Amino acid sequence: MTTDTAAGIAAAVAAGRLTAGDAVETALARIAALDPGLNAFTDVTAPRARARAAAIDAERAAGRSVGPLAGVPFAVKNLFDVAGLPTRAGSRINRERAAPPRDGALVRRLEAAGAVLVGALNMGEYAYDFTGENAHDGPSRNPHDPARMTGGSSGGSGGAVAAGMVPLALGSDTNGSIRVPSAFCGTFGLKPTFGRLSRAGSFPFVCSFDHLGPLARSVADLALSYDAMQGADPDDPWQAPRPIEPVADALVQGTTSLRIAVAGGYFARGGEADCFTAVRLAAEALGAHRTVEIPEAARARAAAFIITAAEAAGLHLDRLRTRPGDYDPAVRDRLIAGTTIPAAWVHRAQRFRSWYRERVLALFDEVDVILAPCTPCRALRIGQATMELDGLTVPARPNIGIFTQPISFIGLPVVAVPVRVGGGLPLAVQVIAAPWREDLALRVAGALESAGVGAAPTAE
Amino acid sequence: MTTDTAAGIAAAVAAGRLTAGDAVETALARIAALDPGLNAFTDVTAPRARARAAAIDAERAAGRSVGPLAGVPFAVKNLFDVAGLPTRAGSRINRERAAPPRDGALVRRLEAAGAVLVGALNMGEYAYDFTGENAHDGPSRNPHDPARMTGGSSGGSGGAVAAGMVPLALGSDTNGSIRVPSAFCGTFGLKPTFGRLSRAGSFPFVCSFDHLGPLARSVADLALSYDAMQGADPDDPWQAPRPIEPVADALVQGTTSLRIAVAGGYFARGGEADCFTAVRLAAEALGAHRTVEIPEAARARAAAFIITAAEAAGLHLDRLRTRPGDYDPAVRDRLIAGTTIPAAWVHRAQRFRSWYRERVLALFDEVDVILAPCTPCRALRIGQATMELDGLTVPARPNIGIFTQPISFIGLPVVAVPVRVGGGLPLAVQVIAAPWREDLALRVAGALESAGVGAAPTAE
Repeated sequence: MTTDTAAGIAAAVAAGRLTAGDAVETALARIAALDPGLNAFTDVTAPRARARAAAIDAERAAGRSVGPLAGVPFAVKNLFDVAGLPTRAGSRINRERAAPPRDGALVRRLEAAGAVLVGALNMGEYAYDFTGENAHDGPSRNPHDPARMTGGSSGGSGGAVAAGMVPLALGSDTNGSIRVPSAFCGTFGLKPTFGRLSRAGSFPFVCSFDHLGPLARSVADLALSYDAMQGADPDDPWQAPRPIEPVADALVQGTTSLRIAVAGGYFARGGEADCFTAVRLAAEALGAHRTVEIPEAARARAAAFIITAAEAAGLHLDRLRTRPGDYDPAVRDRLIAGTTIPAAWVHRAQRFRSWYRERVLALFDEVDVILAPCTPCRALRIGQATMELDGLTVPARPNIGIFTQPISFIGLPVVAVPVRVGGGLPLAVQVIAAPWREDLALRVAGALESAGVGAAPTAE
Repeated sequence: MTTDTAAGIAAAVAAGRLTAGDAVETALARIAALDPGLNAFTDVTAPRARARAAAIDAERAAGRSVGPLAGVPFAVKNLFDVAGLPTRAGSRINRERAAPPRDGALVRRLEAAGAVLVGALNMGEYAYDFTGENAHDGPSRNPHDPARMTGGSSGGSGGAVAAGMVPLALGSDTNGSIRVPSAFCGTFGLKPTFGRLSRAGSFPFVCSFDHLGPLARSVADLALSYDAMQGADPDDPWQAPRPIEPVADALVQGTTSLRIAVAGGYFARGGEADCFTAVRLAAEALGAHRTVEIPEAARARAAAFIITAAEAAGLHLDRLRTRPGDYDPAVRDRLIAGTTIPAAWVHRAQRFRSWYRERVLALFDEVDVILAPCTPCRALRIGQATMELDGLTVPARPNIGIFTQPISFIGLPVVAVPVRVGGGLPLAVQVIAAPWREDLALRVAGALESAGVGAAPTAE
C-alpha cells in the first residue's frame, strides 16, 4: 500500500513505518503548496491536527492501539461542525453564528478511529449547488484543470481529494453533491442509504434528502471510513435504526454472484456520448448484459426539485426576509422562488415519491446493482452558464444533476466510480444498490477498480 | 343493563334474552321513524343487517360463541367503505366511484365481534366541516333540537347515537370531527391516539391528522367497541406498531391514583361561560384542583389550519381542476385557498408542531389527564354563519373547533364527555391523556359517568 491512501497511511502508522505527525505534515505541506491555486480549503486546522497527531504517536509509542484510520489526514465540507469554527455552510450569514462547542458526529467518529482533521472545505452556498462555485469564498477549482468547476456542492471535498491534499474528505449529497464532484474531479464517492449515517452536528439543506458520506481515491478507503462512521447516534432523530453492518470485509467477495444491470431509457440519453461510454465500459468489465428501466425518472427529478426548493425555502424563510443581500444572488433567487411553491404541489410530489420508491425497489427483486451515468457532461468551465445536451442549449447549473437526482430522491446507496474515457477530464459511473446494501455497491466498485476500469489518479 | 347500550344488547343476546334479529329490527324501526326528521342516515343497509343478524342468531342457536358485540346495531360515517356502496365521503363526486368490494377495516372488526352494520351516516363534505351541514344530502339535524346543527363533520354519527337509532356509530376526527358532534349532540366520543386504529378502507381528509373512532351513549360502549377495533392491520401503512392494549377492564380501576388537571390559559377563555362551567363541574367531581398551561395553543391551532388546508388541497387538486362545480361551494373555496398556501409555511408549521409536541408531552410528566372544554358554544342554528365569542362576532364554522384542534394536532387520545350544565342543549368536556393512554382518558370519563356528571341521555 502507498501512503497516498488512507489504508496505506493507517497501515504504515500502525507498523511504525510512518508517524501520524509526518502524515499530517505531508498533508499540510500539500495544502500549502496546492490550495492557493485550487481554493478547496476555507479553513486549515493545523494546530489541532498537529496536537492530535502527536497524541496518536504518543499512544503508539506507549504500545496502545491507534485505530483503523491512525494518522489519516482528512477534511470536511464546511457544513460539518468543527469545534471552535463557525459552521459556515458556504454562506456569509452563518459565519456570524457562534462556533459550535464540539465537532459533528462523523468528525468525532473518524477521529475516534485515529484519523486527523486538517481543515474545512469550500462548498456551494447552503449546498444548493452543483458547480462548486461560491460567491463569498470564490470557486473551488478542478485539480485536473483549474479553469474548470469541481462540481458541487461538495466542491472542496472533490478538489482536495483529487489533488492529493488529503486521502479522505467528507461531503454531503442531497441531489448529487457527493457524486457530481466525484465525477468532475475523478474521485470515488459514497452516498450511503438515507438514514444510515448520523447527521448530528451538520447544517441541513433538505432534511428529507440530505445524506453525508466520504470521498476518497480508492474503494477500500471509502469502506474503511464508512465502517468507522456507522452506528446509532441518539443525537440524530432522523437516523434509521440499523445495526452496524461492516463492509470492509465484503469487498473481497467479488461480483460473480451478483446480478448487475445497466439503467436504460432516461439514463441512456440526454448526455454527452462519453458518459454512456463510461457506463458501457463498466458493464463490459463486469460482464453485465442486462438493461433495466427505472420508471418515470424524469418525473422523479421534477418531484425532487419541487421538494428541494420548498423545504429549503422553509428552512431559510427568516434569513430571506432579513438578510436577502447577504446571499449569493443565484442561491437567493432560487430560494425565493421556492417560497412560492404551493404545498399542494409538494404533497403531490411526496405521493409520487411513494409510488416511485415502490416501483424502483421492485427492480431489486431482479437485479442487485444498477449502473448509470453520474453526470451528463465532464467538468464545465467556471462561470459557464449553459451547456449543450442533445443539441439543445440548456442552463448548466440545474442540468448537471439530471442523473443523480432521481436516485437520491429515494435514498438508495450509490458509489460514484471514476471511469477514464479517452483522455481529458474524468467522468464517473453510479453504482446503485437497494437500501442498506452499501456492501453490494462497494463490491461492484471494488471490482471495477481491480479491473482497472475505475481509477482515481491524483491530479498533480 | 338496558338494551339502549351496546353492552346491554350484547349481554341480552348472549344470554338469549334478545335475538340479534330483534335488536336489528328495533334499530331499523327507530331509523324509519326518526331519520326523516333528523337526516342522519344516507344509506340504510337493512337486507345485509337482517341477514347478518339471522346468521348470529343461528350461531347462538348452534351453541357457538357470538362475540362481545353480538347483535349490536351500528352505523358508520359514509367515508368508511361499505361493500357494494360507493364511499361518498359526503361528496357528490365520490358517489360516481365504483363501490368497494369489501368493508373498511374497522367495520370488519366490529362485525367480527358480532356487531351488525345497519347503515352509512351523513357527514360534512370530505370531512372539511364542523357543522354537520351538507350541500348535497342536506344537514344532519340535532336530535335535541332539529333546527340546530349536529356539529361535524361526523354529524350523522352524533345524531344517530343521540337519537337512539343505534347505540354505536363510527366517525372520524381530523381537527375535532368526533368531539364536536359529541358536544353538540351529547354523546360520548373517543378519538384514539394518532396511529392506533387502522384507517384502511376509509376515505382520507388529512393523512397527518385523520383518526377514526366510536361515538356511543356510555363509556363502557366506547371501551367495548374500541377493544374490538384494536390491533395491527398490514393494510394501513400509517398505523403505529402497538400491541393490543384492552381498556374495558381498566375502567373499574377508578381515578383516585390519577393526577388530573384543568387546562388554563387559552382553554379557559374565548367561549361561552357554560363551557367552562362544564369543565369546572367535571373537575369538582374528580377532586381536581390543579391547572396546567398548554403552551402556544393558539399557534397550534393556526398551524393545524395551515397543514389541514394544504394537505387537503393536495389531495383534491385534480378534482378541483376538473369538477369545481360539483363541490359544496363553501368546501371548494377553502380547498382552492389551500392550493395557494406556500410549502414553506407548511414546513414552518411542521417544525412548530415538533416543538409543541415535545412541550405538551412534557406536561404528562406531571399529570395523567387534562380536562378542557370541547367546543366554545352549544349547538348553533342550522345555517348560522356567525357567532358571538367574548363579545366579538366571528365566523361560526372555523371557530367551533378552537378547543379541539390544538389537541388532535399532536394526536393525543381524547374522550369527549357530555356534561349537562343547566337545562337546554348539551355540552362536552375533553378528557385528554398522553399518547397510547386511552385507558386513562376512559377511566376518567367513566368516573364522570359514575358520578352522574357525564351523561348522554337519549333525545326522544
